[in-house]
Amino acid sequence: MTSENWWLSQPEPSDVAALKGWEGLFTQGSGYLHVRGSLEEHLSDAPQNQSYMRRPANVTAEQFPDMRSKWGTFVPGIYGNHPLMGKEMANLPCFLQIVPSVDGERLDIRQSALLHHQRALNLKTALLSRSLTWHTQSGARIDLTFERFASAAQPHLFVQRLILTSDRDAHLLLEAGIDAGVRTSGYDHFTQVRFERLGAARLRCDVVLDTGDEVHEISQARLGGATWDYVAGERAAHLRAAIPLHAGQSITFEKATLVTTNIDEGELILSDFDSLDTPFDTLLAEHAAVWQRRWEHADVRISGDNHSQIALRAALYHLLRAHPGHDRVAIDPKAYAGDAYRGLYFWDTEMYLLPFFLYTDPERARMLTDFRIRTLLGAQRNAAEFGYAGARYPWEGDADGIEQCPNWQYRDHEVHVTADVVYGLAHTAQATAQPDYLAQDGRAVLRETAAYWLERIDGRPDDAYPSLLGVMGPDEYAPITNNNAYTNRMVAFALSLAAAVEADEGLRERCLSSAHNLPLPRRADGLLLQCEEFEQFAEIDFAALWRDRTKPFAAQVSQERLYRSRCLKQADVLLLMMLFPGEFSDAEVSQAWAYYLPYTTHDSSLSPGVHALIALRLGFADQAWAFWERSLHLDFDGGAEEGIHIAAQGMNWQIAVFGFGGLRTAMQADVLTLNPHLPHQWTQLAFPVVWKGQQAYVEITPDGVSIENRSEQDLTASVHGTSVVIAPGQGSIWHGQAHT
Amino acid sequence: MTSENWWLSQPEPSDVAALKGWEGLFTQGSGYLHVRGSLEEHLSDAPQNQSYMRRPANVTAEQFPDMRSKWGTFVPGIYGNHPLMGKEMANLPCFLQIVPSVDGERLDIRQSALLHHQRALNLKTALLSRSLTWHTQSGARIDLTFERFASAAQPHLFVQRLILTSDRDAHLLLEAGIDAGVRTSGYDHFTQVRFERLGAARLRCDVVLDTGDEVHEISQARLGGATWDYVAGERAAHLRAAIPLHAGQSITFEKATLVTTNIDEGELILSDFDSLDTPFDTLLAEHAAVWQRRWEHADVRISGDNHSQIALRAALYHLLRAHPGHDRVAIDPKAYAGDAYRGLYFWDTEMYLLPFFLYTDPERARMLTDFRIRTLLGAQRNAAEFGYAGARYPWEGDADGIEQCPNWQYRDHEVHVTADVVYGLAHTAQATAQPDYLAQDGRAVLRETAAYWLERIDGRPDDAYPSLLGVMGPDEYAPITNNNAYTNRMVAFALSLAAAVEADEGLRERCLSSAHNLPLPRRADGLLLQCEEFEQFAEIDFAALWRDRTKPFAAQVSQERLYRSRCLKQADVLLLMMLFPGEFSDAEVSQAWAYYLPYTTHDSSLSPGVHALIALRLGFADQAWAFWERSLHLDFDGGAEEGIHIAAQGMNWQIAVFGFGGLRTAMQADVLTLNPHLPHQWTQLAFPVVWKGQQAYVEITPDGVSIENRSEQDLTASVHGTSVVIAPGQGSIWHGQAHT
Repeated sequence: MTSENWWLSQPEPSDVAALKGWEGLFTQGSGYLHVRGSLEEHLSDAPQNQSYMRRPANVTAEQFPDMRSKWGTFVPGIYGNHPLMGKEMANLPCFLQIVPSVDGERLDIRQSALLHHQRALNLKTALLSRSLTWHTQSGARIDLTFERFASAAQPHLFVQRLILTSDRDAHLLLEAGIDAGVRTSGYDHFTQVRFERLGAARLRCDVVLDTGDEVHEISQARLGGATWDYVAGERAAHLRAAIPLHAGQSITFEKATLVTTNIDEGELILSDFDSLDTPFDTLLAEHAAVWQRRWEHADVRISGDNHSQIALRAALYHLLRAHPGHDRVAIDPKAYAGDAYRGLYFWDTEMYLLPFFLYTDPERARMLTDFRIRTLLGAQRNAAEFGYAGARYPWEGDADGIEQCPNWQYRDHEVHVTADVVYGLAHTAQATAQPDYLAQDGRAVLRETAAYWLERIDGRPDDAYPSLLGVMGPDEYAPITNNNAYTNRMVAFALSLAAAVEADEGLRERCLSSAHNLPLPRRADGLLLQCEEFEQFAEIDFAALWRDRTKPFAAQVSQERLYRSRCLKQADVLLLMMLFPGEFSDAEVSQAWAYYLPYTTHDSSLSPGVHALIALRLGFADQAWAFWERSLHLDFDGGAEEGIHIAAQGMNWQIAVFGFGGLRTAMQADVLTLNPHLPHQWTQLAFPVVWKGQQAYVEITPDGVSIENRSEQDLTASVHGTSVVIAPGQGSIWHGQAHT
Repeated sequence: MTSENWWLSQPEPSDVAALKGWEGLFTQGSGYLHVRGSLEEHLSDAPQNQSYMRRPANVTAEQFPDMRSKWGTFVPGIYGNHPLMGKEMANLPCFLQIVPSVDGERLDIRQSALLHHQRALNLKTALLSRSLTWHTQSGARIDLTFERFASAAQPHLFVQRLILTSDRDAHLLLEAGIDAGVRTSGYDHFTQVRFERLGAARLRCDVVLDTGDEVHEISQARLGGATWDYVAGERAAHLRAAIPLHAGQSITFEKATLVTTNIDEGELILSDFDSLDTPFDTLLAEHAAVWQRRWEHADVRISGDNHSQIALRAALYHLLRAHPGHDRVAIDPKAYAGDAYRGLYFWDTEMYLLPFFLYTDPERARMLTDFRIRTLLGAQRNAAEFGYAGARYPWEGDADGIEQCPNWQYRDHEVHVTADVVYGLAHTAQATAQPDYLAQDGRAVLRETAAYWLERIDGRPDDAYPSLLGVMGPDEYAPITNNNAYTNRMVAFALSLAAAVEADEGLRERCLSSAHNLPLPRRADGLLLQCEEFEQFAEIDFAALWRDRTKPFAAQVSQERLYRSRCLKQADVLLLMMLFPGEFSDAEVSQAWAYYLPYTTHDSSLSPGVHALIALRLGFADQAWAFWERSLHLDFDGGAEEGIHIAAQGMNWQIAVFGFGGLRTAMQADVLTLNPHLPHQWTQLAFPVVWKGQQAYVEITPDGVSIENRSEQDLTASVHGTSVVIAPGQGSIWHGQAHT
């Protein structure tokens, strides 16, 4: 394991065009607080206070305003009310500001003469570092190192440091401030902004949002011998000190910022926070220790392929960072690294994020499904809003589970999320071997969602079977369809579980009857149809219409054409087959792959990962590898400008562990089961796994598979069909079965 | 013909709850300028400057803000840019204001002690009158008569008069102003408002809109001996005079307002307008003369049923008033009597409005279809916007034919309008016996819309026939369907006409092939299906879901349920059968009637009229009568609050003349053909008709039918299959054939 495999490095930190993407990739977060990787001194011509009116749109094809830089400071659960979009997580005052000026020249990466500019995120310690050498116009050579982290040990705390050395005597002016001149997707949610100086070197900013939410930020400046002036405007304030630089002597400036809000648990007395006075190194040590423990349970090691190793670690870094550590919020599709998905919660949680946590940190996994149990009341309100009994989980939910999706086609028709939530509960119960989690904790969710389904399911006059009509499946380019296979199977699954906890015999029978009879539509030759009418859609001439393959198909044709044509945004039938692999033969999967792939645009970041997994099942190693690389690459080269595609990052873990590693989920196997497909590009794949409460460690090489039982009980494990019982603390090796 | 059959009277003019509906019904218009029937002195607690953000929504289910009164002053073609809705006809400064105060007490219909308050619109002269007696707190008894009209002779001119008499000496304070404190659907489109006094008794208001459009209003006050003060605020100004009232002596105040805009043809020099100084009676006489001529060509006389007579005359009044008199704009669905449909142009023009004009005033009819020819460029732009060749007429078009519909499901999918436009051109050509109107004037429309269709039509892999996929037919509760029968038939019609003018043989063949092969989907038993998937929709429990039948069904269930269920907003298959009666047997029509009627909510005002006509064809006299009454009643009892349902009013003429009168259209018959169904409630139905350039007059009684040839040539006419040639100036009588 080389050290550079932990460093995510920005190749050209002075490349302004690439800045926004790296702001996303370099997002740091404590679970409580998330901050995009913007430059400390900012760009002079990238104002953050420009207003525009965002409109409901298909985010895939949405054009975001052309901004060189986009600050982001987010506390999940702190919302603004957008007049058109609904609730959205608010972008809070930015406290990153540290601006050095030397001999009257302000640091500016485009104007200043820079040498050796480097910027990198240490994924292992979640520390973002930046070093540069600056030749000032006055002739000084200044070495600067910025460092910063969002404390994993003290989640309200963000810590920064600047070490600066001049090769000659010079005059430094340092500004360290808080800037509330920000917007959330172009909208100003602040109804009050107040700045205050506290003592000699503290700056406080209080804002009230249009939801009534309140946010407080206190920044502490620390620099021996400096005398701070306080400079305040309406929307920004900073502390400023003039410091003499002596040739060859370093000065060290530290800035710590404490963020509290009205949704904090317990009472936070701001002035009590000693941490603001704790030295950087002390805080960093306790922070790094937390990350050390996290990686022990989560790291996936890949040998022979540095690129995959770093990119996958970046994925896991963001998954670990984005988890809130409690069940009051979940993880939004941009992992709080941007406002594009408004900090809301989608089915991504259950289908794309949950597995990583379930098999690495089940306690945190359970918080994600507990979030759904906690927001049942919101789901009941949504159902009533639509005229139904029971509970209807939101397509885009806020922290209370209230539907906030502003586009009716998704909000109204993408009902599968309500069944996906139940699948998530079941997965947690299975993977943690806690059946009571379903039967007790999840009981109300099972019953209430079943009550919704029983009203939502139609019986058409001419049919002998029930139908789910007017639904959008995972593929969002087929907006209103009948008997979507994925949806029907998921709903049948949810109804079966509801029947198992239902005491009323009549209701139980109704649940079972619908569960057994909801159809999976098939063509005469057996092909599983995405929905009844899939073959009634038009053929589409991709070659003629999709001229720029670097951009989504949806950005190049009208929505009207998408909606009547055989074109998929993402895996739909194949996702179903991925989740219920035992219910479909290889021949069926192969038939579906051959049929749907040519129609699939992968406009959704959720698509390549599913295709990689299905390709591995079918033994299409080259295609699997291509989809893996595509999925792994999503957030690079500008992909992260509006935030991290966290569901795809969750899928990247799944491709590595479920796909290449061949781990069967607890929904698919009773004992720890592996059928690895190690890519020929790799010499080793190794990862920890928690199987029904038992820790294990898996290593796969071209020569074989080893499993170490790190738990206190015997562990049964099966590799390519060969089962072994492994004693506590022992390992077992299967030879020569890593490739298929 | 009794005189009261020309008066549309408001039963309780002091009933504030009913005011808004009567404001719509009492809308006056010159073609150029339209003004809602608001009170001259206004209500003190109904502010017109309250802002709100209107959002795209289904207008049927849209909740409009609760306002007691809604001023409306519209010049068709003068727009504002709404940030969410697109272009919308702007509500202009209101110049109606005439406020009398006597002995310090301001006239207020809720506070003042009123006797004999009456208000009525003389449909014959388009004069709105109001008389009331007011007992002031000071003890005076004041008789007031307000009169007003939008001059049909000088369309830029609006004229008002107040005659006031006191039974004792008193002090009158009179205010006459212009109020720009208005909104269009809650939005303020004025970027500049300027007031100015011109001379002793003139007030000028200039506004600039956010589109750059400019509007000028000049009001002239006339009252012998009065001295006017000028009182101006930022958004309103008025002239004010104190006038001594002498017991028993009337004073007469006149106010004339001239409106000009940047879209006026030619140059209007405001100060040149002598009309502002012309006495009320002189202006009224020339105005009434125009209306006299209009009614001669349009009036439908009904004997034995005063209610139908007045309501139908009100319908014709609004049709006559709303027509612009040129082809630079058309008629919006609210007849410029409200802003609900934003002053835009829909298919209503061709299908619901055009026939009335075609058979009463062909010259004006042709202006409506000329409007489509003139806006071909806009239609071409729309097609390009959607990625197609040719021309695509807008679902909601502005004066340039540019699509302004903010709801994607209608905008994207309700493509039939593009074929409806061609049907309208063909109808004009047929009814005016001007085949060149299609072959020459309309040629580019035929060819360009055909070019669009040829790209829009799909051939599905498994089908031997072409299909129109992903369309919404007239029934807007089936949003995205395949092979909608109405749409396919209309498109086939348009393509056939295009083929007839197409020189290129390949193109001609393609047009003809599609025209011949676009399917009309049928059930196994022959039932004409609205669309392929109609029987795949869910059954719906109307009894359980539609609890308040006085409100639209759509307001009581979710859109999601509408979109997956067998429920029709309006006639769809039946409209097709109404337009192409010869293509469907009585058995087929009867089958469709029996099948669709139970599913039809008539949430659309366009629905009852079609049903009345089909019921008459099928001999269902009682049902026809019920639908007639329903359609006729639409704008009463609050129905006109947001404007007139002008398409339904056009249908009311069609029910009377095509239905009860039994006139075949020129699309259906070569010679003037009548098959009357006189309702037993009526003793006579009589109307003028223009048949292919020849004037005729039809009278139908229970005893028979008479047709008078008012043209210069022989007229061939057929009644119930018996043809006669009628010499110029002569009549012909068919006995005993009026009832069927």
